Amino acid sequence: MVDADRLWRRLGELAEIGRVEGGGVTRLSFTDEERVARDLVASYMQEAGLEVREDAAGNVIGRLEGRDPDAPVVLAGSHVDSVRSGGDFDGPLGVLAAVEAAQTTREEGVETGRPVEVVAFTDEEGARFGLGMIGSRALAGLLTPDDLSREDENGVTVAEAMREAGLDPERVGEAARGPDSVHAYVELHIEQGRVLEQRDLPVGVVTGIAGPVWLRFVLRGEAGHAGATPMGPLRRDALAAAAAVVGAVEREAERSGTSVGTVGRMEVEPGGVNVIPGRATFTVDLRDIDGDVRDRLEARIADEAARVCEQRGVRLETETLQRLPPAPCFGAARDAIEAACEGLGFQPFGLPSGAGHDGMQLSGLCPIGMIFVRSRDGVSHNPAEWSSKEDCAAGAEILYHTLLRLAG
Amino acid sequence: MVDADRLWRRLGELAEIGRVEGGGVTRLSFTDEERVARDLVASYMQEAGLEVREDAAGNVIGRLEGRDPDAPVVLAGSHVDSVRSGGDFDGPLGVLAAVEAAQTTREEGVETGRPVEVVAFTDEEGARFGLGMIGSRALAGLLTPDDLSREDENGVTVAEAMREAGLDPERVGEAARGPDSVHAYVELHIEQGRVLEQRDLPVGVVTGIAGPVWLRFVLRGEAGHAGATPMGPLRRDALAAAAAVVGAVEREAERSGTSVGTVGRMEVEPGGVNVIPGRATFTVDLRDIDGDVRDRLEARIADEAARVCEQRGVRLETETLQRLPPAPCFGAARDAIEAACEGLGFQPFGLPSGAGHDGMQLSGLCPIGMIFVRSRDGVSHNPAEWSSKEDCAAGAEILYHTLLRLAG
Repeated sequence: MVDADRLWRRLGELAEIGRVEGGGVTRLSFTDEERVARDLVASYMQEAGLEVREDAAGNVIGRLEGRDPDAPVVLAGSHVDSVRSGGDFDGPLGVLAAVEAAQTTREEGVETGRPVEVVAFTDEEGARFGLGMIGSRALAGLLTPDDLSREDENGVTVAEAMREAGLDPERVGEAARGPDSVHAYVELHIEQGRVLEQRDLPVGVVTGIAGPVWLRFVLRGEAGHAGATPMGPLRRDALAAAAAVVGAVEREAERSGTSVGTVGRMEVEPGGVNVIPGRATFTVDLRDIDGDVRDRLEARIADEAARVCEQRGVRLETETLQRLPPAPCFGAARDAIEAACEGLGFQPFGLPSGAGHDGMQLSGLCPIGMIFVRSRDGVSHNPAEWSSKEDCAAGAEILYHTLLRLAG
Repeated sequence: MVDADRLWRRLGELAEIGRVEGGGVTRLSFTDEERVARDLVASYMQEAGLEVREDAAGNVIGRLEGRDPDAPVVLAGSHVDSVRSGGDFDGPLGVLAAVEAAQTTREEGVETGRPVEVVAFTDEEGARFGLGMIGSRALAGLLTPDDLSREDENGVTVAEAMREAGLDPERVGEAARGPDSVHAYVELHIEQGRVLEQRDLPVGVVTGIAGPVWLRFVLRGEAGHAGATPMGPLRRDALAAAAAVVGAVEREAERSGTSVGTVGRMEVEPGGVNVIPGRATFTVDLRDIDGDVRDRLEARIADEAARVCEQRGVRLETETLQRLPPAPCFGAARDAIEAACEGLGFQPFGLPSGAGHDGMQLSGLCPIGMIFVRSRDGVSHNPAEWSSKEDCAAGAEILYHTLLRLAG
């Protein structure tokens, strides 16, 4: 059984690194704050009896040897970087729960068939370079030279930041794991939503990580005098058309049953109280754990937007800002989590992850699975982010049993 | 018959005053530009044989005496101030057409029973002090001390600006006309919309000047992660609610048959692509020439907004930014315009004025009537504002015959 006090204490210690005024933490990738956090995690790994190393991308890895050292490893972890003024749980909980699970395995004298590796990925959030998941991309062999030339707001590239952090960007390819070298990847993470809270459940089993499509719509009608232009065909009101599209995004996403669709930005020009809007620009964020479902949703929204704009004499331009494939949670990893839940008396309640996680990058490498821990009020990326000690311990216990099942 | 060439030449001369780079004019109230424009109008009035004076508010008035000097006057005119980078027709056309009509009356040797007064009102647009119609308010006895203390962007009050222009704000009350001193007010103005153009008509008869209600809606939902928050009751998306209200504004205004409803401004916070909007702020501009119809429209929109927000768990705040009563065009003034149209072979096509005009202020003083002249592309408050020489002449001819009918 995991040591809830130890896990909770370590969470508190890690949260002191990069602590900002008013609460919360800022630990951007390849900074001193991330470095100190990784060193602290390495010390916990050593306490846990793991063999610690750092790979070429800066991922910190603690290995618990298995009876068969050549067997594909069972990988578990998360990240220790944060957004600006982020919370204490997003990332660290998954890393420390995995350390706790490995330490418990060792303390309880359990010997596994496969080796278990705990990983603290570098740069999951992307808060510095706008890319994100650099460590997991590297481990999956997906980090490209283009990625390395991304710049932060001071014009420092990923490659330069790696060098400053003592890493060699030329050798980052060495962090890549070969095919069949990883048996499964399991990550524990806070939910960052309110589904578990609403259902009064401490934990959930992630069914897949949704892939986002981000679109930008520009609708051009015709500005005009709000008083002197009657309703009807003389009006080509870009905002009225945009409002109909916003309605369609919501309606079609609801109809899908599983997808989410959000219009998060909206700008209207010229923006006078008495001026009919000539232009409306807005974004659409669509996600589903099934790429086909998401793409069909996108197509329905595009059709509806075209119909609305055609009917209103409004010109429509659409631009794709981002398109990532979803990562289903399947096979050995998810099965083991569900079995662990049932074995411990927790309902293996399935829910999708709308937010992205390192597992997305690994889903081509091995089966991935995720355990979600209830978030208070669904708040995340915010100093108010909170999960209770009991829920964290429940998640860690499930992770421990999941790793035992996967490592055999 | 009016002299189309003379009218057109004067329009061109007046448009040189306050001419700005790239075309258009800027003649703000109580500035040198407005003063020079008023002096030029005064010189045209003298050419026309009118007796010229300036009232205590700075309105320039040219009088053509009637057989009965004590009879209530027939008033016709418009304004010579402009918005910033405004067009050449909005205001000047009405003033110069009235001068032209009076001059034609005199040149054709017609003697009227009632005196005719041509007025060039000061400050109709409100571009300087955000109030507007200062001259017509003063003439109607509606200018208040509060109005006089309004400031421009440099902190100069209306009273100070009047003093700088050689006027005495203490005596502005002297500009007010007594009850029964004005028989009717007639104004010719460009349409500033596209209704006449669409119907291929050079002129129209205004049925009333719509009174605007300006509202600000603030909708507060809850910001959240666009990926981690499923559709349905866990979302309290302020923009989705706002979009439904925008739809209701359009739908209810259309349903009214006569009103117009416009959402011209929309701001969404926090405004991230992947963040559910927590707050949406927008304005609503509602107009009708019938105040009851407009108020019922407002009530239906308020009901619908309340229903939408209630259903979505979104908090709704509404603030009234402005509420002006409409001014119907009725009685002697409108009858005379319609009769003049028919006598000259023009269809007396009735249409509302969505924009405000000086006549709004005078509608408590006397019957008001307006003649609209077709605007190319409906463009106004813009250097591209344009009406053809023929349409301007047609409007002036109708105005001439209207004044003859009203003055007897």
